[in-house]
Amino acid sequence: MTEEPKQEKIHLFTPGPTPIPEQVLRRMAEPIIHHRSEEFHTIFKRVNTNLQYLFRTTQPVITLASSGTGGMEATFVNLFSPGDKIISVNNGKFGERWVSMPKAFGLNVIELRYEWGDAPTPEDISKALQKHPDAKAVYLVHCETSTGTYTDVHSISKVVHSQSSALVCVDGVCSVGGMELRFDDWELDACVTSSQKGLMVPPGLAFIALSNRAVDVMKYSKIPKYYFDLNKALESYQKNDTPWTPAITLIQGLDASLEMIKDEGIESRWHNHTMRAREVRNGVTLLGMKLFSRYPSDAVTTVMMPVNIESKRFHELLRKKYSIYFAKGQGEFVDKIFRVAHIGYHDKRDITIALEALKKVVTESVT
Amino acid sequence: MTEEPKQEKIHLFTPGPTPIPEQVLRRMAEPIIHHRSEEFHTIFKRVNTNLQYLFRTTQPVITLASSGTGGMEATFVNLFSPGDKIISVNNGKFGERWVSMPKAFGLNVIELRYEWGDAPTPEDISKALQKHPDAKAVYLVHCETSTGTYTDVHSISKVVHSQSSALVCVDGVCSVGGMELRFDDWELDACVTSSQKGLMVPPGLAFIALSNRAVDVMKYSKIPKYYFDLNKALESYQKNDTPWTPAITLIQGLDASLEMIKDEGIESRWHNHTMRAREVRNGVTLLGMKLFSRYPSDAVTTVMMPVNIESKRFHELLRKKYSIYFAKGQGEFVDKIFRVAHIGYHDKRDITIALEALKKVVTESVT
Repeated sequence: MTEEPKQEKIHLFTPGPTPIPEQVLRRMAEPIIHHRSEEFHTIFKRVNTNLQYLFRTTQPVITLASSGTGGMEATFVNLFSPGDKIISVNNGKFGERWVSMPKAFGLNVIELRYEWGDAPTPEDISKALQKHPDAKAVYLVHCETSTGTYTDVHSISKVVHSQSSALVCVDGVCSVGGMELRFDDWELDACVTSSQKGLMVPPGLAFIALSNRAVDVMKYSKIPKYYFDLNKALESYQKNDTPWTPAITLIQGLDASLEMIKDEGIESRWHNHTMRAREVRNGVTLLGMKLFSRYPSDAVTTVMMPVNIESKRFHELLRKKYSIYFAKGQGEFVDKIFRVAHIGYHDKRDITIALEALKKVVTESVT
Repeated sequence: MTEEPKQEKIHLFTPGPTPIPEQVLRRMAEPIIHHRSEEFHTIFKRVNTNLQYLFRTTQPVITLASSGTGGMEATFVNLFSPGDKIISVNNGKFGERWVSMPKAFGLNVIELRYEWGDAPTPEDISKALQKHPDAKAVYLVHCETSTGTYTDVHSISKVVHSQSSALVCVDGVCSVGGMELRFDDWELDACVTSSQKGLMVPPGLAFIALSNRAVDVMKYSKIPKYYFDLNKALESYQKNDTPWTPAITLIQGLDASLEMIKDEGIESRWHNHTMRAREVRNGVTLLGMKLFSRYPSDAVTTVMMPVNIESKRFHELLRKKYSIYFAKGQGEFVDKIFRVAHIGYHDKRDITIALEALKKVVTESVT
């Protein structure tokens, strides 16, 4: 591996954006089409069907022109009314956001706070629901991007439905398309993801799978909304249309990526992600490094920064010498951990490259 | 011009999306970069400077990942509080939206309603302000996409500032980048546009130019918001950053398109749009057709559907035989008018193609 100072190939292992397949880039580079046309409706119909395949659901999946944060906002402003009580798990930067965001809209948020790298158990949620039987929803982060931490959404969903009528709402931004998630079987009520992680499309699209129960509930929401009004979005969705101008080229790219996901098969894809994640965890452990998260996800691996190198120098070396892009930590862990994303368009060879570069950087700075 | 049934080149004359230049397609097809990186900050800094050039302003221009409708929502939810009175001009489908949207957020909306194709005069606005001296803003649509109607924003802004302290807020979605608009000289307070019209980029980005007065006012807004919180956006903007994941590839495409606009020169660009618009208006008039709007804009020309042909057949012929895409009307005028957009990436030759096809379709259906 020699230095190639100019026009290097970028090897992205960042948790969004993830690398974009050539097939997707090509589709997005085609001449643009008008969105109020048969051509677009045909594409969007196929996309909508494939999104259901992705989420393992027969219920609607809405597409919005926004980031994942906009998608999450859409759940809060459509499913509740001011004063409604919800339970929200905060075990990282995104969980933190799903506490402050609903508060901004006047919800009564019961925050379940965890150390970064930790995750809620079904028992924790059960106790919280006993204490707050009037909670209208439980919010969970399937994979907390800031810490690479996995939450057992399936088991928690069972507990929630067994003892309350609360909705189960999931931030699946960093998991859908990579980690096992079965919207219908797990009886989820809302699950949000975005285009730039497991879906291998540039950022700019958010997706919300909704249960029929959620669709019913959202008729009664009293929070002011317009752009993110899911009743309007759902009405257009039934006609393979959107209420506002959709992000056409991103949807064309999505069409290509969903076909790739279907070709791979969603269950094979989950399996392949699990294998790659194991390889990364084994690799860093063999290098004598310590995993940060107590519940490592199969989408992002977080690793304690080795003591012999500073964070800034570490990332600089990786980028300049090996053209490898990992992510820093976030919040107070910004320089204490580093993050290796392996969700999306990666294969075994990419993992080898990443581990090889990591080994060299760590070894170099030892000597 | 012969029939080419397969893989035809699409000639788009739709008012968004407009054709995307090859330079922009190419930039968007480059390998994706991470947004929390020097590479991205460098691009976004240049983009932000060029957006100021575009709007003719030295004040901030915020970029959002949303459609233009999201950008307009950001103005309502950031500049006002529930119960605030605003005057909103409704002279078409978009004006209609800028009445219903602020109502959804609890504003007291004084609707100035006009026939489609008509536009407000400075005197109308002056009278409305005399009647409602407590109005906190006047909302205008610079070019009403549904009718191709031009509103004299400059003269109206003068009137507003001469007799009140109301903010002047402008829907510039269908005008910015094509029609003359001088944010600072005209003393506008908020002006929204989106990526897919004058900016020649696919849909998915909204832009909001804000006056320092607007920036000050938005500190006091009491409407709940999060994704569209412009205070958060402005804080990130100062660091050439965004609070949420930006639509990276669209911003890269925008970087290319803004360089093209700078190369053309914004004033030449306005002039070229005016010339093309004249050519279209002259052309359809010479064909014996009647313009729909009383105040035709230089971005979109709306024409009464000829009596000898049905709307459906008209558009089908144009598309299938000549590969020309005009737009239907909207609302009650869906089949009564047709719309020819000439904003964005067009040149004289394109106008010739459009008029030629139009002539043939009209002549054919006469015989």
